Amino acid sequence: MPPTERDPRALVEAARAGDLRAKARLFTLVENGGPDAQAALALLAASTGRAHVVGITGPPGAGKSTLVSQLAGVVRQRGQTIAILAVDPSSPITGGAVLGDRIRMQNLHGDSGAYIRSVSTRGAVGGLARAVEDLVSVADGLGYDVVLVETVGAGQDEADIAGIAPTVVLVEVPHLGDDVQAIKAGILEIADVFVVNKADRDGADQAAAVLRAMLSLVQQPESWKPPVLKTSAINGEGIEKLLAAIDEHQEFLRKSGRLDAWRVERARRRLLDGARERLLQRLLTAVPDEELQSLALAIAEHRISASQAVETLLSFDQ
Amino acid sequence: MPPTERDPRALVEAARAGDLRAKARLFTLVENGGPDAQAALALLAASTGRAHVVGITGPPGAGKSTLVSQLAGVVRQRGQTIAILAVDPSSPITGGAVLGDRIRMQNLHGDSGAYIRSVSTRGAVGGLARAVEDLVSVADGLGYDVVLVETVGAGQDEADIAGIAPTVVLVEVPHLGDDVQAIKAGILEIADVFVVNKADRDGADQAAAVLRAMLSLVQQPESWKPPVLKTSAINGEGIEKLLAAIDEHQEFLRKSGRLDAWRVERARRRLLDGARERLLQRLLTAVPDEELQSLALAIAEHRISASQAVETLLSFDQ
Repeated sequence: MPPTERDPRALVEAARAGDLRAKARLFTLVENGGPDAQAALALLAASTGRAHVVGITGPPGAGKSTLVSQLAGVVRQRGQTIAILAVDPSSPITGGAVLGDRIRMQNLHGDSGAYIRSVSTRGAVGGLARAVEDLVSVADGLGYDVVLVETVGAGQDEADIAGIAPTVVLVEVPHLGDDVQAIKAGILEIADVFVVNKADRDGADQAAAVLRAMLSLVQQPESWKPPVLKTSAINGEGIEKLLAAIDEHQEFLRKSGRLDAWRVERARRRLLDGARERLLQRLLTAVPDEELQSLALAIAEHRISASQAVETLLSFDQ
Repeated sequence: MPPTERDPRALVEAARAGDLRAKARLFTLVENGGPDAQAALALLAASTGRAHVVGITGPPGAGKSTLVSQLAGVVRQRGQTIAILAVDPSSPITGGAVLGDRIRMQNLHGDSGAYIRSVSTRGAVGGLARAVEDLVSVADGLGYDVVLVETVGAGQDEADIAGIAPTVVLVEVPHLGDDVQAIKAGILEIADVFVVNKADRDGADQAAAVLRAMLSLVQQPESWKPPVLKTSAINGEGIEKLLAAIDEHQEFLRKSGRLDAWRVERARRRLLDGARERLLQRLLTAVPDEELQSLALAIAEHRISASQAVETLLSFDQ
């Protein structure tokens, strides 16, 4: 690679000019973190905040990838550009790849107005949110009109996605499970648009009715009423209505002032996360690794409690 | 409540003596965190490290709760005590409860050797792992022989559970989904025992065969070979074999020295998490809230980058 492309500024400029290899390198640079990643993000910062960021979540097997590729097709048809960040829950052991399904997005291959990127969660607690937020900033700063973040979720991930995307779409399928626990109360409160996908199957109407009934229990008066839509990603049914509902929600957020409030809240969280991490790094430069290891061993052998060990560790801080 | 029960030492003593209300209060105290929680954990620390900690995870609708209650029944039959921590992914907005399924564990009601506790994740990134680890320490320190941690998982949660429980059981169902993505590579590498539940349904043999084929791709030579078992929680089939496989894995961990290595690694992580949090709290006592809010606003309005704001925040640190 030419030496200039290692430089964050050159990478950002080449990526902005549409160089695909530069884009890929820029995303990788930011995903890996470090000073160059921070420099690239600082260069992009002034041009962020314009993209329409949408989270798509739901259980494995709900057909999210196919739905996302159909949504992207409609976005492209109306002349907007789109970046798709597909978050793959991968191994904390190998950081390994997924038994992938990106192949479903073949309809977007060779389209310069659509960019698809798989993101590995790398198993770090809190790492998903931070890495994905930074990658959203890259896509946003590069000028993509729409940024879709696809995650597999059934718990913690939903909380993460709500902090990353102001509009969250939950994708369910008919007869997902016969257990009441198949839909959790928390998920109902996070999602802004509900989709019953694979609506060509039996039970779609019933699933939509159950969702609506559950939503009526958690809805606040005067606020956004989350619509429940039916889609069939296989034949493209309902995709345009879904996009219209997403647009409507973003319009609601803008007009009500909630988008601004959400952005300040998110910024505050990023600030505290960053401070937490920087403070720890600074402390660790003052602590010999043997000391750290011996404190860990003392906790593991129940000779001291974790909080006692933390106190000892903090005594190294100047 | 009598004044003595507010005191961590009195609570721990009463809980150890078998007082159910004291147990419930002790778990609540530790779940809520704070100095009293730390004091209680320090009191319990010396008697932890004996329990057999097992994580049970899998997608919604896989029948985990029924399986856990059956497993608990078998554990009780062989004369051991058991604590079950059922982690409910609940709302980051209301912290609200789940559309619960704890009712399935009715077979354990009134049994003083079985303790069941729902744990809300409260939507905090990283909060799940920390809170659950502390609650595991409580159950362990109170002398329960087996601690089962049940989580709904399809991503990040798996990484969390592998850091909490040295043995992880993944519960799947026949025909979970027709998508390849229904089983992620990362999950295969985290789980130590695989279960195809609802084995009375069609497709159980096929699901088990697919799991075995996928496992053969990720297995390391010379290490633990994760068994793939079939269970039917409804009629109790395969439950004893599952417990035997869990025992065998713990035996493997102990003999190979991996349990000790895992404990030191976990202790190191707890130490760093604790230090990170304490350092931030210390910094924030020196920062006026208006300053924090104005930095967040500056990030949100793209006037400065998040890392620039972090530098400014850190300048308050003495």
